Amino acid sequence: MDSRWFPLPRRQVTIQDGFWKRWRDLIGQTTLSHQFNQLQNEGQIDAMKLDRRFHRGWELADPWLSAGYWGGSVFWDSDLAKWLEAASGRLEQHADPALEAQVDQIIGLFEQAQLPDGYVNSHILTWRPQHRFKNLRDLHELYCAGHLIEAAVVHFEATGKDRLLNVARRFADLLISKFGPGPGQLRGYPGHPEVELALMRLYRVTGEKRYLDLCRFFINERGRSPNYFEQEAVQRLDTRPFRPGHPGSPFAYMQAHEPIRQQTKVVGHAVRAMYLFAGAVDLALEDGDEELLNVCERLWQDVVTTKLYVTGGIGSASENEGFTRDFDLPNENAYAETCASIGLFLFAHRLLQARLRGEFGDVMELALYNNILSGISLDGKAFFYDNPLMSRGRHRRVPWPWWCPCCPPNLARLVSSLSGYLYSEREGEVAVHHYVTSEARARIVTLNVTSGLPYSGRSVVKVQPKQSAELTLWFRLPDWSRGSHQVRVNGAEVTPAPVDGYLPIRRTWAEGDEVELQFSMPVRRRFARPEVEADRGRVALSRGPLVYCLEQADNGPDLEGVIVSPEAEFQAVERPDLLGGATVLTGPGSREEVRTKQLYTDEPPPVERVTLTAVPYYTWDNREPGEMQVWVRYGSS
Amino acid sequence: MDSRWFPLPRRQVTIQDGFWKRWRDLIGQTTLSHQFNQLQNEGQIDAMKLDRRFHRGWELADPWLSAGYWGGSVFWDSDLAKWLEAASGRLEQHADPALEAQVDQIIGLFEQAQLPDGYVNSHILTWRPQHRFKNLRDLHELYCAGHLIEAAVVHFEATGKDRLLNVARRFADLLISKFGPGPGQLRGYPGHPEVELALMRLYRVTGEKRYLDLCRFFINERGRSPNYFEQEAVQRLDTRPFRPGHPGSPFAYMQAHEPIRQQTKVVGHAVRAMYLFAGAVDLALEDGDEELLNVCERLWQDVVTTKLYVTGGIGSASENEGFTRDFDLPNENAYAETCASIGLFLFAHRLLQARLRGEFGDVMELALYNNILSGISLDGKAFFYDNPLMSRGRHRRVPWPWWCPCCPPNLARLVSSLSGYLYSEREGEVAVHHYVTSEARARIVTLNVTSGLPYSGRSVVKVQPKQSAELTLWFRLPDWSRGSHQVRVNGAEVTPAPVDGYLPIRRTWAEGDEVELQFSMPVRRRFARPEVEADRGRVALSRGPLVYCLEQADNGPDLEGVIVSPEAEFQAVERPDLLGGATVLTGPGSREEVRTKQLYTDEPPPVERVTLTAVPYYTWDNREPGEMQVWVRYGSS
Repeated sequence: MDSRWFPLPRRQVTIQDGFWKRWRDLIGQTTLSHQFNQLQNEGQIDAMKLDRRFHRGWELADPWLSAGYWGGSVFWDSDLAKWLEAASGRLEQHADPALEAQVDQIIGLFEQAQLPDGYVNSHILTWRPQHRFKNLRDLHELYCAGHLIEAAVVHFEATGKDRLLNVARRFADLLISKFGPGPGQLRGYPGHPEVELALMRLYRVTGEKRYLDLCRFFINERGRSPNYFEQEAVQRLDTRPFRPGHPGSPFAYMQAHEPIRQQTKVVGHAVRAMYLFAGAVDLALEDGDEELLNVCERLWQDVVTTKLYVTGGIGSASENEGFTRDFDLPNENAYAETCASIGLFLFAHRLLQARLRGEFGDVMELALYNNILSGISLDGKAFFYDNPLMSRGRHRRVPWPWWCPCCPPNLARLVSSLSGYLYSEREGEVAVHHYVTSEARARIVTLNVTSGLPYSGRSVVKVQPKQSAELTLWFRLPDWSRGSHQVRVNGAEVTPAPVDGYLPIRRTWAEGDEVELQFSMPVRRRFARPEVEADRGRVALSRGPLVYCLEQADNGPDLEGVIVSPEAEFQAVERPDLLGGATVLTGPGSREEVRTKQLYTDEPPPVERVTLTAVPYYTWDNREPGEMQVWVRYGSS
Repeated sequence: MDSRWFPLPRRQVTIQDGFWKRWRDLIGQTTLSHQFNQLQNEGQIDAMKLDRRFHRGWELADPWLSAGYWGGSVFWDSDLAKWLEAASGRLEQHADPALEAQVDQIIGLFEQAQLPDGYVNSHILTWRPQHRFKNLRDLHELYCAGHLIEAAVVHFEATGKDRLLNVARRFADLLISKFGPGPGQLRGYPGHPEVELALMRLYRVTGEKRYLDLCRFFINERGRSPNYFEQEAVQRLDTRPFRPGHPGSPFAYMQAHEPIRQQTKVVGHAVRAMYLFAGAVDLALEDGDEELLNVCERLWQDVVTTKLYVTGGIGSASENEGFTRDFDLPNENAYAETCASIGLFLFAHRLLQARLRGEFGDVMELALYNNILSGISLDGKAFFYDNPLMSRGRHRRVPWPWWCPCCPPNLARLVSSLSGYLYSEREGEVAVHHYVTSEARARIVTLNVTSGLPYSGRSVVKVQPKQSAELTLWFRLPDWSRGSHQVRVNGAEVTPAPVDGYLPIRRTWAEGDEVELQFSMPVRRRFARPEVEADRGRVALSRGPLVYCLEQADNGPDLEGVIVSPEAEFQAVERPDLLGGATVLTGPGSREEVRTKQLYTDEPPPVERVTLTAVPYYTWDNREPGEMQVWVRYGSS
């Protein structure tokens, strides 16, 4: 794996303007503050109080459920930590003393809570201190540890302060002493993967191999027989059946039904799967482990060829928050959790460092602009947990999904750290994965990118080499351009042959060189393969990276009566006034008239001709509540 | 209600040949014997043993359920009684000493079981004698009484023997003493209506008004406030919630949420609703109660305009075996119980005696030839309980639905007594509702009908008046002929103006007069009104009274990939070799090819041209298991 790429770190890339600058600032200025208030509750960040609030939530929602409730949120620390990570990223971009004070306040709580041996987990310490590391299957201790470590790494990188990093390292060192194949150690691994990704980051920031080793242990130990979670349950005399109805095996829910290296289909909880495989790719990259990388690639192929929504969502079922059988992609009941798409984004980004292939970037972009971004309202203060592709008007964003607030801070930390996902470099080469208006300071060259995405396919890249040398720049050729593009260097057209979905341009670059990329952005009609039952006889519209949808606000009610014909031509129309400034698609359609009084007739329902307006999927549910459809009926009528 | 009609009784009509003669004989010769064996079990008709078998059935199916099981089948007697009614009808048509011996054996058991006060119910007497009339809501005592009375009436009419009639009268007399508004009487009414219909029959066969009075009491008392079932539950200290999730009200499940006369929408359990309203029409006819009749007509309109499957099925939901919201008619999950369609048939037949309207006959015919007849296999030995309009191949008929064997004997008794539903008469007039090859001996005229239904629209009616007098014959003009028909009297075309869907021909008939009716039988494409979500963009094919479906056996798998275009012309093709001799429909269609490897493409799936074969719905699942669809995708592609 000598040919691996390295992501250009977050702090070497500055997002300067445009679409993502606006989102980044909205989240930095509005969303983080909104989320802090939601997390804070009653004026104090206190795990016990917050846990009790969570408990009250259950009671209010369903008094019956609360009778058997186990008391508190096992993932509470992770939500705080994700917010810390997002806020730290913000501090890296923009001085904000008030935000910094909030960050320091939470860090102080973690410092206070940490035991002398390094253990810290507010749920366990508050509700059941005797359960430490006794139920890795359910109690999310390692998951929370992972997020704490990630937050600490980013906080250190962003501020240079090591308070949280010290907390995280002490906890990580405790994990190293507790977990492993040695005598007296636990051969366990997390019920909810995440700490693998975190250990890789901790290893990279500290250079200490023992964190890498623990990650490797978790990855390789997972799913071995006899199953650790089964043994652990016996140890604590827990005889209750665990997920008896889960397809395949109870432990498939958390990808622990067999060792990772034997897995060929992605199963179970979607976020867990994505975090696990992203961590596994990280490990494979570090270890030069081609076998593990090939396993991850096979699992990637399984996801994107059989289990991916056209919006970049994954994990169609609410029952396991995850995967079911191939091609089972219902629209109205789509789970498609925001966090799962974020996991897919992270998985793809790791794969991209191993193999420079356009498809990884394409899926990152698809997820980012659609299923992930739909997770937040245009005002930055309300969130979807699940992102269905069809609604009758009752699916609404909420200020805080109190039953499981994982998605809002996860989305905030992703956008806050987006600059770290745009470029990669290696000896003599730089790759541009995503066209975002930004300055990228690689070792050998600085690129200044100006991009019209997602609404225009034109990007201009100014090249400032640090020294005069031959250098290859790789530009991702988005699949949505359908291969139709123009590239100019200093005004002169060049025609680099695409390699795996990237356009390489090799030359000796000089200060002031300019690459102009013009990717076609046709309105595309998308069709699912016939096995996807929910989409049969239906079409989805997309343009560039954006998937579109019909909303009742533009098209009236009863969207299921709308039909798009094979001949319909849709136009892109800029609407600066609409939904924060969006390019919509308009075109002709038919609409069944609901006016007969007979239940059955011998003629199909009469149709009227209408003009349809489709808006970007990420913008839906930002006006009055109403119906929404991504997949619209298709045919002549 | 001077203008009311009277059904020509069963024994005055002889089905002589053709489609229904074959079905009647199959049921008489094969099905009754098969059902007796199923009911009998272990060589003896014994309620306790049979009840225990039922109990074992639950245990086998689900050991967990059986732990909380209440022990036995509350509707056991009704299944025996429906079989007795069917067998009695058979004995009226055809001497069969072996069958008669089986009938007498069961009658003897009822005689033995009956208590001196007239009470008889093998479930209550076996399992919980202390519960007599303590739980009318759930225990089906009055329902079982009703079927016993109906069987007794038919047995008496068919054989002249009054053994069972005496049992039934003693029981009915006990009911009269127990139920009513007087001191010490219960102001209750059945949880599952049926006894109302039975009391009307008992009144008619005995001429004794007290049976009519009890029916009237049950109908008028039902749904009054405070609710009897609530009071009754308090009396027996039963505080468990009753159907807490039922739409509208728990007692809407059994149409007891408000008095019948206030009801405007049909709700709840479909069989209960149909039996109740059929009984109510019977009562209204007898009492000249126009108010009650109008209520029933309003409820009828609600069913047929918002809740009727194209196959004549009703009651779309398994949750309550009944009705949900308007236009909620899912295909794959259609409940559409065979018994519910039989109830619809009975309701329509009663309405037809009040108002001679073609729509009532049309719905009877639709239900009979489709949702009802699909309830039985072509060999007469297997049964559907629910009749979905789409299957992926796992919905199969069973020899006996042991968990609730209500449908098989109900279907047998309907076909066995079909001759009683074909004609009506009143002073100087006879109405032909259904074209079945039969001799109808009315008071004033004998009609000999020869009919090609359901496969040919030609019927010939020979008229033999008993005396020379002007007489109007009314012939139903089926809606499936779309108004296209020819009528000849003695070879000369006549053009009677249709009145409410009937063609009246008034003349002085002479011996040997012959009416020839030729109803067009085009292949019809049927469309549901757009509110029926499940059928949007779909077409169903029908011809004459038969609804058709695609089966995998003729069309290969993946029927959801089949598309019928607006231009497709279907032909009727006689296939004497197929499915007991059926006319099938063939025509062109397209089929999506499943061959892409990409999850999403920019072109719709390619299609191949295929020839489709549709078979009558009632014949499906009589070959190898496979997919089935009534509603096929419709459109150009």
